[in-house]
Amino acid sequence: MSIDKNIIASENESLHLQHKKKLDFLQSEIENTQTIIDKLAAFQIGIPSWALGAGGTRFGRFSFGGAPRNIEEKIEDVGLLHLLNKNSGSISLHIPWDIPDDYQKIKALAAEHQLKFDAVNSNTFQDQPGQEFSYKFGSLQHVDAAVRKQAIDHNIEVIKHGVALGSKALTVWLADGSCFPGQLNFRRAYQNTLDSLEQIYAALPEDWKVFIEYKAYEPNFYSTTVADWGQSFSYVNKLGNKAYTLVDLGHHLPNANIEQIVALLLMEGKLGGFHFNDSKYGDDDLTAGSIKPYQLFLIFKELVEGMDARGMNHATDLGWMIDASHNVKDPLEDLLQSVEAIMLAYAQALLVDRKALEEAQQTNDTAKSQEILQAAFRTDLRPLLAEARLQSGGALNPLGLYRKLNIRKKLIDKRGADSIATGL
Amino acid sequence: MSIDKNIIASENESLHLQHKKKLDFLQSEIENTQTIIDKLAAFQIGIPSWALGAGGTRFGRFSFGGAPRNIEEKIEDVGLLHLLNKNSGSISLHIPWDIPDDYQKIKALAAEHQLKFDAVNSNTFQDQPGQEFSYKFGSLQHVDAAVRKQAIDHNIEVIKHGVALGSKALTVWLADGSCFPGQLNFRRAYQNTLDSLEQIYAALPEDWKVFIEYKAYEPNFYSTTVADWGQSFSYVNKLGNKAYTLVDLGHHLPNANIEQIVALLLMEGKLGGFHFNDSKYGDDDLTAGSIKPYQLFLIFKELVEGMDARGMNHATDLGWMIDASHNVKDPLEDLLQSVEAIMLAYAQALLVDRKALEEAQQTNDTAKSQEILQAAFRTDLRPLLAEARLQSGGALNPLGLYRKLNIRKKLIDKRGADSIATGL
Amino acid sequence: MSIDKNIIASENESLHLQHKKKLDFLQSEIENTQTIIDKLAAFQIGIPSWALGAGGTRFGRFSFGGAPRNIEEKIEDVGLLHLLNKNSGSISLHIPWDIPDDYQKIKALAAEHQLKFDAVNSNTFQDQPGQEFSYKFGSLQHVDAAVRKQAIDHNIEVIKHGVALGSKALTVWLADGSCFPGQLNFRRAYQNTLDSLEQIYAALPEDWKVFIEYKAYEPNFYSTTVADWGQSFSYVNKLGNKAYTLVDLGHHLPNANIEQIVALLLMEGKLGGFHFNDSKYGDDDLTAGSIKPYQLFLIFKELVEGMDARGMNHATDLGWMIDASHNVKDPLEDLLQSVEAIMLAYAQALLVDRKALEEAQQTNDTAKSQEILQAAFRTDLRPLLAEARLQSGGALNPLGLYRKLNIRKKLIDKRGADSIATGL
Amino acid sequence: MSIDKNIIASENESLHLQHKKKLDFLQSEIENTQTIIDKLAAFQIGIPSWALGAGGTRFGRFSFGGAPRNIEEKIEDVGLLHLLNKNSGSISLHIPWDIPDDYQKIKALAAEHQLKFDAVNSNTFQDQPGQEFSYKFGSLQHVDAAVRKQAIDHNIEVIKHGVALGSKALTVWLADGSCFPGQLNFRRAYQNTLDSLEQIYAALPEDWKVFIEYKAYEPNFYSTTVADWGQSFSYVNKLGNKAYTLVDLGHHLPNANIEQIVALLLMEGKLGGFHFNDSKYGDDDLTAGSIKPYQLFLIFKELVEGMDARGMNHATDLGWMIDASHNVKDPLEDLLQSVEAIMLAYAQALLVDRKALEEAQQTNDTAKSQEILQAAFRTDLRPLLAEARLQSGGALNPLGLYRKLNIRKKLIDKRGADSIATGL
Repeated sequence: MSIDKNIIASENESLHLQHKKKLDFLQSEIENTQTIIDKLAAFQIGIPSWALGAGGTRFGRFSFGGAPRNIEEKIEDVGLLHLLNKNSGSISLHIPWDIPDDYQKIKALAAEHQLKFDAVNSNTFQDQPGQEFSYKFGSLQHVDAAVRKQAIDHNIEVIKHGVALGSKALTVWLADGSCFPGQLNFRRAYQNTLDSLEQIYAALPEDWKVFIEYKAYEPNFYSTTVADWGQSFSYVNKLGNKAYTLVDLGHHLPNANIEQIVALLLMEGKLGGFHFNDSKYGDDDLTAGSIKPYQLFLIFKELVEGMDARGMNHATDLGWMIDASHNVKDPLEDLLQSVEAIMLAYAQALLVDRKALEEAQQTNDTAKSQEILQAAFRTDLRPLLAEARLQSGGALNPLGLYRKLNIRKKLIDKRGADSIATGL
Repeated sequence: MSIDKNIIASENESLHLQHKKKLDFLQSEIENTQTIIDKLAAFQIGIPSWALGAGGTRFGRFSFGGAPRNIEEKIEDVGLLHLLNKNSGSISLHIPWDIPDDYQKIKALAAEHQLKFDAVNSNTFQDQPGQEFSYKFGSLQHVDAAVRKQAIDHNIEVIKHGVALGSKALTVWLADGSCFPGQLNFRRAYQNTLDSLEQIYAALPEDWKVFIEYKAYEPNFYSTTVADWGQSFSYVNKLGNKAYTLVDLGHHLPNANIEQIVALLLMEGKLGGFHFNDSKYGDDDLTAGSIKPYQLFLIFKELVEGMDARGMNHATDLGWMIDASHNVKDPLEDLLQSVEAIMLAYAQALLVDRKALEEAQQTNDTAKSQEILQAAFRTDLRPLLAEARLQSGGALNPLGLYRKLNIRKKLIDKRGADSIATGL
Repeated sequence: MSIDKNIIASENESLHLQHKKKLDFLQSEIENTQTIIDKLAAFQIGIPSWALGAGGTRFGRFSFGGAPRNIEEKIEDVGLLHLLNKNSGSISLHIPWDIPDDYQKIKALAAEHQLKFDAVNSNTFQDQPGQEFSYKFGSLQHVDAAVRKQAIDHNIEVIKHGVALGSKALTVWLADGSCFPGQLNFRRAYQNTLDSLEQIYAALPEDWKVFIEYKAYEPNFYSTTVADWGQSFSYVNKLGNKAYTLVDLGHHLPNANIEQIVALLLMEGKLGGFHFNDSKYGDDDLTAGSIKPYQLFLIFKELVEGMDARGMNHATDLGWMIDASHNVKDPLEDLLQSVEAIMLAYAQALLVDRKALEEAQQTNDTAKSQEILQAAFRTDLRPLLAEARLQSGGALNPLGLYRKLNIRKKLIDKRGADSIATGL
Repeated sequence: MSIDKNIIASENESLHLQHKKKLDFLQSEIENTQTIIDKLAAFQIGIPSWALGAGGTRFGRFSFGGAPRNIEEKIEDVGLLHLLNKNSGSISLHIPWDIPDDYQKIKALAAEHQLKFDAVNSNTFQDQPGQEFSYKFGSLQHVDAAVRKQAIDHNIEVIKHGVALGSKALTVWLADGSCFPGQLNFRRAYQNTLDSLEQIYAALPEDWKVFIEYKAYEPNFYSTTVADWGQSFSYVNKLGNKAYTLVDLGHHLPNANIEQIVALLLMEGKLGGFHFNDSKYGDDDLTAGSIKPYQLFLIFKELVEGMDARGMNHATDLGWMIDASHNVKDPLEDLLQSVEAIMLAYAQALLVDRKALEEAQQTNDTAKSQEILQAAFRTDLRPLLAEARLQSGGALNPLGLYRKLNIRKKLIDKRGADSIATGL
């Protein structure tokens, strides 16, 4: 399933006049739009392989048809997204759901779609068929050393898959924790986890990073062994220079100030990457920007300012990934919406008048600070996103074109209405 | 799988001296313990058929072996619980997971175990194989009348199953809602749901009740169409005298004062029943009393006082059911613990010195009010629970005996280590 | 303290070219902008008298200088806001903080500033000097009929003040509740409150409304006697046609879906009005739109659509008021920002393509529904707000002009650096 | 205001038979009760000077009469509590509210009441009359070095007061933070705060500790500069060996697992002390154990087990303090209730069968772990608390005796009905 570049070009042609008018207006209002456009064009967001199939809840899943049946079709799907928006240039694989049979073939396929392999993800929260020990009571935290070894070995194997594909990072999300008071000794769970992580860390290639994700709750409902940024931070400090904290927007207690956490982790040199999504209640895994777009902007404001303060490259020095789950939308449409919302927040953050903000902060001019932030947020920057896509060879209106070309229908025709993505 | 009554009697014999000593002490401290014991003995909590198999989360399930493979084995399991604690005298079935082939046989089996059939539960939150329309976008709220009709018909069919078994109530829990802003027109969703409920209501036998459950969120993560007590209350008022609100302890927003809600629903004559469980974060479905035992006591304090104010029979005038899900415990052990915690909270509520409390309230003596409540809560009433079981022919120590008799091992021997409960 | 209209005009003149360019662009993109502009111009938001002084927390207040010292100066301040933005055309008084000595003089002063008197607010959450009974244990809920009578009489007196000034509504916010389990009998508290409200209701003039506000918690920290929309709804239904629920955005439990509540109250004909503010944690009383601007838009989307469905007049058929508290901003600047954010959300809601949304909803096209809503939210509508002000004789840039004219400095010069607003 | 020891003795005499019976029963059930009793007797909880007056909220305070008018009367009040329960043997002062005129006199007075001086508390969240710079925009975080210096100097002065009185620790609670996005540069706020804390740290005597408290929100409602345990932990690690984290139970986001935080801080050697209170919604500052007594027990279970793992002395190696605020109770009664609830949780934690729990944890026997914890919690240990008091010369029933002796009435007679505690 691919789209002829001529089709994109001709569709862009038909929309160009309208786009040009909006862009011209914006360029007459904002200085140096090309600087922003270049940064937008360079920014790439990793698509997780598991977001391409039907998500769901413990109460059920609802399929949508045409789901990718294997890693090749997952790569094709991400390739399609990237062709349309030019900001989805990498895929984040999940092991064991996406183990390639032939690395070279898979690498070639990815290259064909101009895709890189983002962080690889291990899975020690489910039992796989034929697995010797169960993770029912945890993995890296487990009271039994044999279970821990199995989980450690799995992570090391994931690294090997990643090396073969050209990944440069391992993401460790642990469901480890407990459901009832008394189930765990918290200190022992911490120590076991740390010991296990140290063994995984020792297996990291020189140029790799390991991202330690935290999550407040779910699937464990009393305690989680890496429950908050402070706990992840304490692990990554002990592990060493290659260890970083990964922030998933849905993994916090109610009302947490995520942008402050991001700012402090960046300050400490320990922010590794992001899992974007949105949520109203818990880890709802909704489309990025669909519930709290202002929060997304505030987070990007910290990212841009904090990365610049450390001389970091926005596009490459942090791992940018989506982690969402789609129950009531076509997942490809959902991902196009997520990428658009993330890019918009990034563009707004780039527009913030930082010199004026700095001045307002130094004089405690709170009303002014708010005016400065909201001026950026309220400006309609969609034309800059479109222009960045256009300059990169993507579509002016990715979702519009996706629908116009009936791509979901074509995928269903090809893959069937009942196809199921591996791992789901 | 059953337990010979002689075994229970002989085990009780061996524990009797120790029990007697504790009971004697308590009876020397508290007046009229037999009144409390009688009420405890009369109190019966419905066991939901789905709590007998392996629960789980969207991240996976972990089986435990010996799960009941069909409705007969589910009844056997509840019978076993009831034999041990004499407070689990009913089972709440879930349709279509537990449709009997032969009603008379199933009724006879239940009677053999001294079990009644509690409220029957419909399921319009999942698609069943062969189902014509999908519930992906809701059931009773659906924009398409044909989907609504399918869901209405299902509920009416559930009532028929219930009638055949001797149930007297239908519980309607709706997952209906939306995941994203704009997905639903809230008013239309409400009206469609009300219309659908009215049709179901019309099919209720004269002596039946319908319980409308509410839930703040999950599996929908933006809105739920019966989201809080106020919305359920608004539906049941419109429906009529047979419609009541059902309270599930895990279905509220963070920090909700559930006991106040219970008191007001009782006052309005619209509280229908309870789903007991416990939680720290959301609808965690943990063992009752495992996280917030004081809250459970406070709820029972309102129940006892509010039911007495209306001259209601504690044992029969509300539907008492457990709704929990067991991922890391043997579900039968978990249910024994839940029932014990519920009975303890009920006993503590019965112990409250209500005359003194009334006086303290009338004089705004807040410190005294607290002393009165905590005096009841801090008293160790476990001997009264044991005595109530003893007098009813149950086990002094149900969980101890369950373990001593290796019942889980026997169930695994009989049903296999990989048996899966229907519907899960 | 007032501003010469010529100054506003001349300032507008200097900004006009820039404004015209933005407006022209927007008008070339959106049809029928004048319809939106007219609605914006007609929309008036009540300013509460208590928002004009220094707010604060239990940990302290920080004054800002130039606070209005009496009701006359409060009216002057609101008049100033209205002069600038033409959307602050009413003042909501708080009794006993703002009792006028001479009604006619006060009415004349308000008229001079083109201000109306919005809902009057009673205060039974604090003890006033010389008050016979204390509200320490509640007011309308109090166990002592004499205390209740005092609170009822106070409310009736507030109505009288309101009648004298031309108000048409009474807002009753009750702090009544309890801090500890057992302190209250919930049913009796409800009944006492209902009885008290009925007496107040009986004193309402024919053309008046009473708004019953709800609040989840604070200043009582265990229970509140009108705690959620369902409880308020239950009171207003019992009271009668003149009783309505008032929604304050900060008065909910974490994660509540306020827009759904608003839609249902409107559907039931029982939504009376709004207290706008914003919050991250609880009743933080921050500037409207400063934390969750998308939520504010979603609420307005329900308001506009729901009012139109009932043929209501946006500008006049609900009570629109701000209820915020300013600790770190000049309150007048804060109010200008609040009004701007509210107007922006209203404008975005007016821009929603409702026909397309209806269609997307009817076909369960969730991705499309989101596109439609976000298209409206992402459009920069500030030029329409400016144009509405311009056409009404207000300032193109109210906050800019307020600062340029050094109004706070002038107020300090006139009223002193240590002036304290009555009631704070 | 004091109580003759003979009165206590004679009251105890009259209650002794009843007490003896309960104690005998408990001692026949539990081994080594004297070990527990000894630990209970040794345990001392600091009473904060500010808890002795009328607390309140931003909506008002309600006085109760007889409030202590100065530091001498505050010491008297704590002495009275300690006389009754023998577990309130220290007072925690707040500067500038409790600055002594004559250290020796105050020390002598405290000694007379057998009281020590617990941690001293600085105040940089309010402006004091005559203060040069305002803390409106923070203190140790402030953008202006002069304001920071003022706040640093204040803390150093507080240390000096503490040294003069024999305190050994400084508690720093910072309200510093921001109310609106953009108001603060998070990194700069962190760095300024760290620099300020380093200067205060440098002024600590050799044998002193500094406790850095954290709080999620209030009085700042967007960000707090020491907002969670992770942030406090990061500061205390940078400061050095004398710096520790202080946990206040009310300072967390909803649903936080505080016992896990406590366990990890203890493990890292960085837990310094506690502020006990209880809450349902936020920092409600209610009586300890009045809302979530099981959580209090779980926290103590971690404390006891974690301190023993490090060979720490329960009574002396952490700072145990109450931090509550009393709006609807007599504060002395409230404090007696708080101390009782804390002692009960401590006793229950001491009763946990830790060997059996360890075994259950090592075999992932979750149901057993729960049984073990709940067995301790459900046992009625009030007789052990009473016995510990009796053996220490306190009252068997402190609250009962306090009421019987009409102490509040006597305090009102002596101090007046309108006395106001310094600082409130």
